[in-house]
Amino acid sequence: MDTLGWVALASILSAGVCMGIGAIGPALGEGRALAQALGSIAQQPDETSTITRTLFVGMAMVESTAIYCFVVTMILIFANPFWKYFLSTAGG
Amino acid sequence: MDTLGWVALASILSAGVCMGIGAIGPALGEGRALAQALGSIAQQPDETSTITRTLFVGMAMVESTAIYCFVVTMILIFANPFWKYFLSTAGG
Amino acid sequence: MDTLGWVALASILSAGVCMGIGAIGPALGEGRALAQALGSIAQQPDETSTITRTLFVGMAMVESTAIYCFVVTMILIFANPFWKYFLSTAGG
Amino acid sequence: MDTLGWVALASILSAGVCMGIGAIGPALGEGRALAQALGSIAQQPDETSTITRTLFVGMAMVESTAIYCFVVTMILIFANPFWKYFLSTAGG
Amino acid sequence: MDTLGWVALASILSAGVCMGIGAIGPALGEGRALAQALGSIAQQPDETSTITRTLFVGMAMVESTAIYCFVVTMILIFANPFWKYFLSTAGG
Amino acid sequence: MDTLGWVALASILSAGVCMGIGAIGPALGEGRALAQALGSIAQQPDETSTITRTLFVGMAMVESTAIYCFVVTMILIFANPFWKYFLSTAGG
Amino acid sequence: MDTLGWVALASILSAGVCMGIGAIGPALGEGRALAQALGSIAQQPDETSTITRTLFVGMAMVESTAIYCFVVTMILIFANPFWKYFLSTAGG
Amino acid sequence: MDTLGWVALASILSAGVCMGIGAIGPALGEGRALAQALGSIAQQPDETSTITRTLFVGMAMVESTAIYCFVVTMILIFANPFWKYFLSTAGG
Amino acid sequence: MDTLGWVALASILSAGVCMGIGAIGPALGEGRALAQALGSIAQQPDETSTITRTLFVGMAMVESTAIYCFVVTMILIFANPFWKYFLSTAGG
Amino acid sequence: MDTLGWVALASILSAGVCMGIGAIGPALGEGRALAQALGSIAQQPDETSTITRTLFVGMAMVESTAIYCFVVTMILIFANPFWKYFLSTAGG
Amino acid sequence: MDTLGWVALASILSAGVCMGIGAIGPALGEGRALAQALGSIAQQPDETSTITRTLFVGMAMVESTAIYCFVVTMILIFANPFWKYFLSTAGG
Amino acid sequence: MDTLGWVALASILSAGVCMGIGAIGPALGEGRALAQALGSIAQQPDETSTITRTLFVGMAMVESTAIYCFVVTMILIFANPFWKYFLSTAGG
Amino acid sequence: MDTLGWVALASILSAGVCMGIGAIGPALGEGRALAQALGSIAQQPDETSTITRTLFVGMAMVESTAIYCFVVTMILIFANPFWKYFLSTAGG
Amino acid sequence: MDTLGWVALASILSAGVCMGIGAIGPALGEGRALAQALGSIAQQPDETSTITRTLFVGMAMVESTAIYCFVVTMILIFANPFWKYFLSTAGG
Repeated sequence: MDTLGWVALASILSAGVCMGIGAIGPALGEGRALAQALGSIAQQPDETSTITRTLFVGMAMVESTAIYCFVVTMILIFANPFWKYFLSTAGG
Repeated sequence: MDTLGWVALASILSAGVCMGIGAIGPALGEGRALAQALGSIAQQPDETSTITRTLFVGMAMVESTAIYCFVVTMILIFANPFWKYFLSTAGG
Repeated sequence: MDTLGWVALASILSAGVCMGIGAIGPALGEGRALAQALGSIAQQPDETSTITRTLFVGMAMVESTAIYCFVVTMILIFANPFWKYFLSTAGG
Repeated sequence: MDTLGWVALASILSAGVCMGIGAIGPALGEGRALAQALGSIAQQPDETSTITRTLFVGMAMVESTAIYCFVVTMILIFANPFWKYFLSTAGG
Repeated sequence: MDTLGWVALASILSAGVCMGIGAIGPALGEGRALAQALGSIAQQPDETSTITRTLFVGMAMVESTAIYCFVVTMILIFANPFWKYFLSTAGG
Repeated sequence: MDTLGWVALASILSAGVCMGIGAIGPALGEGRALAQALGSIAQQPDETSTITRTLFVGMAMVESTAIYCFVVTMILIFANPFWKYFLSTAGG
Repeated sequence: MDTLGWVALASILSAGVCMGIGAIGPALGEGRALAQALGSIAQQPDETSTITRTLFVGMAMVESTAIYCFVVTMILIFANPFWKYFLSTAGG
Repeated sequence: MDTLGWVALASILSAGVCMGIGAIGPALGEGRALAQALGSIAQQPDETSTITRTLFVGMAMVESTAIYCFVVTMILIFANPFWKYFLSTAGG
Repeated sequence: MDTLGWVALASILSAGVCMGIGAIGPALGEGRALAQALGSIAQQPDETSTITRTLFVGMAMVESTAIYCFVVTMILIFANPFWKYFLSTAGG
Repeated sequence: MDTLGWVALASILSAGVCMGIGAIGPALGEGRALAQALGSIAQQPDETSTITRTLFVGMAMVESTAIYCFVVTMILIFANPFWKYFLSTAGG
Repeated sequence: MDTLGWVALASILSAGVCMGIGAIGPALGEGRALAQALGSIAQQPDETSTITRTLFVGMAMVESTAIYCFVVTMILIFANPFWKYFLSTAGG
Repeated sequence: MDTLGWVALASILSAGVCMGIGAIGPALGEGRALAQALGSIAQQPDETSTITRTLFVGMAMVESTAIYCFVVTMILIFANPFWKYFLSTAGG
Repeated sequence: MDTLGWVALASILSAGVCMGIGAIGPALGEGRALAQALGSIAQQPDETSTITRTLFVGMAMVESTAIYCFVVTMILIFANPFWKYFLSTAGG
Repeated sequence: MDTLGWVALASILSAGVCMGIGAIGPALGEGRALAQALGSIAQQPDETSTITRTLFVGMAMVESTAIYCFVVTMILIFANPFWKYFLSTAGG
């Protein structure tokens, strides 16, 4: 197997591991915040709109770490600079 | 085994690992939020509609991390660019 | 062993790992939500129907992550595109 | 050892691992729900029938993830499509 | 060592791992439920019969995951289809 | 080393691992239930006989998972069907 | 090294691992029950004899899982059937 | 495979691992802070603006550790000095 | 290195691992029971003699699992039957 | 591959691991402190300025451990003395 | 390297691992008991002498598991019977 | 690759691991202390100066363990005595 | 590399692992006891001298497990009997 | 690579691991004690001087385990007796 093949292999494995592990933290963190939000609404219904707004802005921030992982995964699969280089040398 | 075979192997293993590990976090996070929602409904029945609505919007957001994993898995199995490339070179 | 055999091996192992690990999170998450639901019913019997309805809709959502794993496992065993390709080349 | 032997090996190992790991989550989740159900009955004896009904419907849902693992294990042992293919080629 | 030997090896190891790991979850889950049952009886002695009945029906359900593991282990040792096939070919 | 030796090795290792790991869960689960039983007796001495009876019936059920492991270990050491087969072929 | 040596090696290692890991669970479980027993005696001194009796019967049951491990370890070291077989063939 | 290929491989794998593991901590930390913020708003609605401001400044600080990981990942993929060096020597 | 050497190696390593891991559980379990005993004495000084007696009888029982490990370790080092056998054959 | 290549490989892998693992602790520690700060503000609004000041000075101190990791990562990538030495010898 | 060297190697490694792991449990167990003792003294100063006496007798018992590890380590380093045997054969 | 290269490799990897793992403990410990400090200020505002002073002196002491790791890392990268020796022999 | 070198290697690695792992338990145990001591002093200032005395005697006992590890480490580095033996044979 | 190189490698790796792992326990233990000290000062300001004094003496004792690790690390890097021996033989 030539270099091009090895780069493809590493990219596939790295993408799977990065997204798989990277989804654990954000999901747990968001679940915790969401749980607390629901408890807070039950405790202080008058503040529902404030709580909900803060919740979704904050969850977007937590989600950002999942999105970093997703971006890295997508770069590794579709915009991998190493792959492009070896493709160009192989095709040259 | 040629490069095409190795890419297939890596894709299959990476898909299984990515989805398997990636399902742990979202399931635990959603379970926690759901549990708190039920506790909040019991505590403040008048806010059921608000709590339920916030719950499902929030769970959709937590679910998104599981869906990222599912998307990556599906890309690796059905729309793998590395596989397509080596298929085209093998078929050329 | 030829490529077809290796693809079969990887699919079998990946399927077992994906389903085995993927069942941990949903089962724990659903168990937690169910436990809280029972506690809430005992605390607020008048809201039983609301709690039960929210519980089962929510559990279906948590179950979805287990189903993603099941779907990936079934695809790997019965509708594996890599297997089909190598089968067609072997049979050609 | 030929391909048929390797497929048998992978199926046996994958079946054992899938069922072994897959039994941890559901058992813990069901145990937690059952514990809470007993506590709720003690706290609110009048709701025993509602609690018991919700408990068993919910446990069936949690059990479903264990059953997915059992199904995958049985497929790997008794209805393995890869095994069947290689059996047909070996017998051909 | 021929294929028959490898299949025997894999079956023995897989059986031991499957039963060993598979006993952790059910034992912990049942222990937790049993502990809560005893606490509930102490708290609400009048409901002893209801609690005990629910306990044993529920524990049977939790036990089912351990039994799945035991069944898989027994199949791997005494009714292994792969072993039977290779035995028939070896004896043919 | 011939096949008979390898089967012996696998049986010995698998037996040790199966019993070693399989003893963790039941011991912890029974310890937890026993602890709660003692607390319940202290809290409600009049129910001692009910609590003790439920405790020992329940512990027998938890113990069953340890016994499954013990049975599998004994089968692997003293009634191993694979060992018997290879013994008969070696002695034939 | 001949088969007899390998069987000795596997028995030694398996015995050490089985007893080492198998001692963790019972010790923790018994420690927990003992701690609760002492707390219960302090809380309800009049029930000391009942608590102590239940404690030691229960600890004997928990101890049983440690004893299973000890029995397996002793069998592997002193009454290993595989060792006996190979000894008889070596001495034949 | 030449040095250029190995550097590409190491960069791809290191990028995936770094981002995947590095997302766990910040996501959990931010989720915890967000949960507490929502609880504090429910408890002291008059301080919403102070709490929200402190929350987002603090989350930006926690996010910084995720951003360090993202920066390292991007450097490894797009501005890798080792890659550039070997590229220049290969192209020389 | 001959068989005698390998048996010595395995015995040394197995002894170290068995005692090292086997000391974790009993120490933690005894520490927990001891801590509770001290708390109980502070809470109910009149029961000091009962508590102390129960404590030391119970700790002896927990200690027994550590002693099993110690016994196995000593057997492996000083009364190893496998070592004795190979010693006799080597000296024969 | 020559020494220069191996040094590059080690630097890339070490940088990724160091930053990835090193981000877990600071993020969790800062998240905990931030959560407590928000709770304290809600509890004692008059002390907001003191709490906020102490929070950010303290978080800077916690952040320092993440910065140590970042510094080490940057040194390994951009100011690696080993790389410089081998570069000078290779270029000599 | 001859057998004597391998035995030395195994003894050194086994000694380090045995003492290193074996120090975790006793230290944690004693720390917990000590913490509780201090809390009990603060709560019930009149019982200081009883608590202190029970504490140190109990800690000696917990310490015993650490001492088992230390004894095994010392035996492995200074009174290793396997080392002595091979030394005598080497010197013979 | 000569000895000099191996020493460089080991130093790079050891530096990354040492700093990465060594940052977990101090960051968590400082975060915990900081969180408590903020809670204490909210509870007892009059003692702010005492609390803050004790906090920063204590955090400096916790930080010292991170600094030990940083020092070891810097020594391994910039003042490695082994590297210097082999450099002198290589340059001699 | 001759036996002397291997013994040196094993001693160095074993010393590092033994001290590194062996420092975790005592540090955590002492930290816990110290924390409780400070809490007890705040709760019962009149008993400060008793608490402090018990604390330091107890911590010395916990420290003893760390010292065992330190002693073993020092023996392995400076008074290693295996090293001395091989040194004498090499120098002979 | 000669023995001198291997000893250098082992020393570098062992030093990094020993310090990295050895910093976790002391940092966590000191952080816990510091947190409690701050809580105690807030609760009992009159005892500040006693608490602070006990805290720093105790932290010095906890720190001692980190210092053992640091000492071992420094010995391995700068005063390694094995390195000195092989250096003298190499230079002889």
